[in-house]
Amino acid sequence: MSVEGLPMVVPAQDLPMRVRVHEVGARDGLQNEKSTVPTEVKAEFVRRLADAGLTTIEATSFVRPEWVPQLADAEALFPLVRDLKGVCLPVLVPNQRGLERALALGADRVAVFASATETFAKANLNRTLDESLAMFEPVVRRAKDEGAHVRGYVSMCFGDPWEGAVPLHQVVRVCTALRDMGCDELSLGDTIGVATPGHVLELLSTLNEQGVPTNVIGVHFHDTYGQALANTYAALEHGVTTVDASAGGLGGCPYAKSATGNLATEDLVWMLQGLGVETGIDLGRLVATSAWMAEHLGRPSPSRTVRALSHKDQ
Amino acid sequence: MSVEGLPMVVPAQDLPMRVRVHEVGARDGLQNEKSTVPTEVKAEFVRRLADAGLTTIEATSFVRPEWVPQLADAEALFPLVRDLKGVCLPVLVPNQRGLERALALGADRVAVFASATETFAKANLNRTLDESLAMFEPVVRRAKDEGAHVRGYVSMCFGDPWEGAVPLHQVVRVCTALRDMGCDELSLGDTIGVATPGHVLELLSTLNEQGVPTNVIGVHFHDTYGQALANTYAALEHGVTTVDASAGGLGGCPYAKSATGNLATEDLVWMLQGLGVETGIDLGRLVATSAWMAEHLGRPSPSRTVRALSHKDQ
Repeated sequence: MSVEGLPMVVPAQDLPMRVRVHEVGARDGLQNEKSTVPTEVKAEFVRRLADAGLTTIEATSFVRPEWVPQLADAEALFPLVRDLKGVCLPVLVPNQRGLERALALGADRVAVFASATETFAKANLNRTLDESLAMFEPVVRRAKDEGAHVRGYVSMCFGDPWEGAVPLHQVVRVCTALRDMGCDELSLGDTIGVATPGHVLELLSTLNEQGVPTNVIGVHFHDTYGQALANTYAALEHGVTTVDASAGGLGGCPYAKSATGNLATEDLVWMLQGLGVETGIDLGRLVATSAWMAEHLGRPSPSRTVRALSHKDQ
Repeated sequence: MSVEGLPMVVPAQDLPMRVRVHEVGARDGLQNEKSTVPTEVKAEFVRRLADAGLTTIEATSFVRPEWVPQLADAEALFPLVRDLKGVCLPVLVPNQRGLERALALGADRVAVFASATETFAKANLNRTLDESLAMFEPVVRRAKDEGAHVRGYVSMCFGDPWEGAVPLHQVVRVCTALRDMGCDELSLGDTIGVATPGHVLELLSTLNEQGVPTNVIGVHFHDTYGQALANTYAALEHGVTTVDASAGGLGGCPYAKSATGNLATEDLVWMLQGLGVETGIDLGRLVATSAWMAEHLGRPSPSRTVRALSHKDQ
């Protein structure tokens, strides 16, 4: 699956040479599926993503099974993929109990999921912002003590469905707290997809001024208003080299009432390939993987690149 | 229809203060519809777009009715909208005969549709590139003699389905020829949606070096691979102030086999509003217009912003 000679490779000035794509489809994507995907299909999905050249694949979440039934098979899934060579397999750990489950299976990369707003902390974690940070503190410490790499997700960095625009200082406060706990990396989430490039650049600059360097920052954009790739391009211009994306745009169905689609990895890779930014990803294999998963899920992929390239072969 | 306080307005450095959106939905959008839209509905569409603040609305095409049956009512439609105050209403004229029909109705802005590649000139106009340029020459001269403003579309500026990547010099050659004929404005079309930001910037720089200034250049991106808005952002950074877009993303159905969707005006306006770039457009009214048209066409709008904001009201 490819378009002969396209996209044409024309680098732009002052962009990173290489970008690490943090693939979230298997976790962030599948957790929103109505039907539960069989464990073996998930494992095959992760294997195919690795085969397509993804080197960081978030595999699952050790959340309480009754909270996210779609990921209730974390214990069964993780051992099926953990020995993939050359691939980092971070897993989400919502709390201390989730961390212990992950560590027991040999996970060496974990992620905690914080919020930049009070209302989302309350809605998602049933805690105030400070209580949620206090909850993460021993989780991050224990993970670091075990030698694990820790990512801190910060959701609602740009807008919040209840609070509207989110002040920069709130995001800085949560990012700084996570860094102080020991998080190695942050992922700035535009959970409701409202960000635009100027807002992205201002948040990145403000974080830099407050002592959070660009090289610990990943960006995580949603395509709810079609802004994800433009925002990513702005972030690349700022020097960001870690970008979250979801194979096939999995995660929040764009045809459903509240569209919250993740940036599709294929649309991102098309742009990066055109810009001559290395990712190590084989776009054709990735598209084939997402087309396979779309077939399994019984609906077309929301990724425009997947749709365009899949049609080419018909 | 709005999201209270969002997008947050945060300007980015060195962008234009104001952008003119060249709305192509009524022409480029509707010409690809399977069913023919009644003339009065088209007129109402144009009126609603004007009411939403669009100031350049491409109304129709004076093409031979048997070629594009969807636009066969140009003579009936144009008089219904031509007196809209404060709105430029360019029309497409494929040849001398189309120009005369347009001029007879009082059109004062016309556009010709050229190609940057031999194969598309052949496919679309059944002429070689040089023959097509020779055909446009008297059309542009006559339009200028009549005091009309002339736009020159250049399609396939980045890639071509038969030729693959399109060399920059070919685009420069066609752009220069159109300028030499007297075209006031050019619209660089990524007809198959393959462009990425570096390619866009290189084409713009090359055109500048070859004597085509940025202020006569508009950009026209398609979202086939999800790149349209990122490419637009790069073009804005270069100083481009005219951007083509289609209300609701009309034009080439993204669910159809060969997805060729235009950049949705709403997704563009969301970004420009967030960047603090003036457009004079009321996003809520525009979304309402596209939602109304989607209802008329019997399918959801492919614009992510239209879908997200329409759902808010449900």
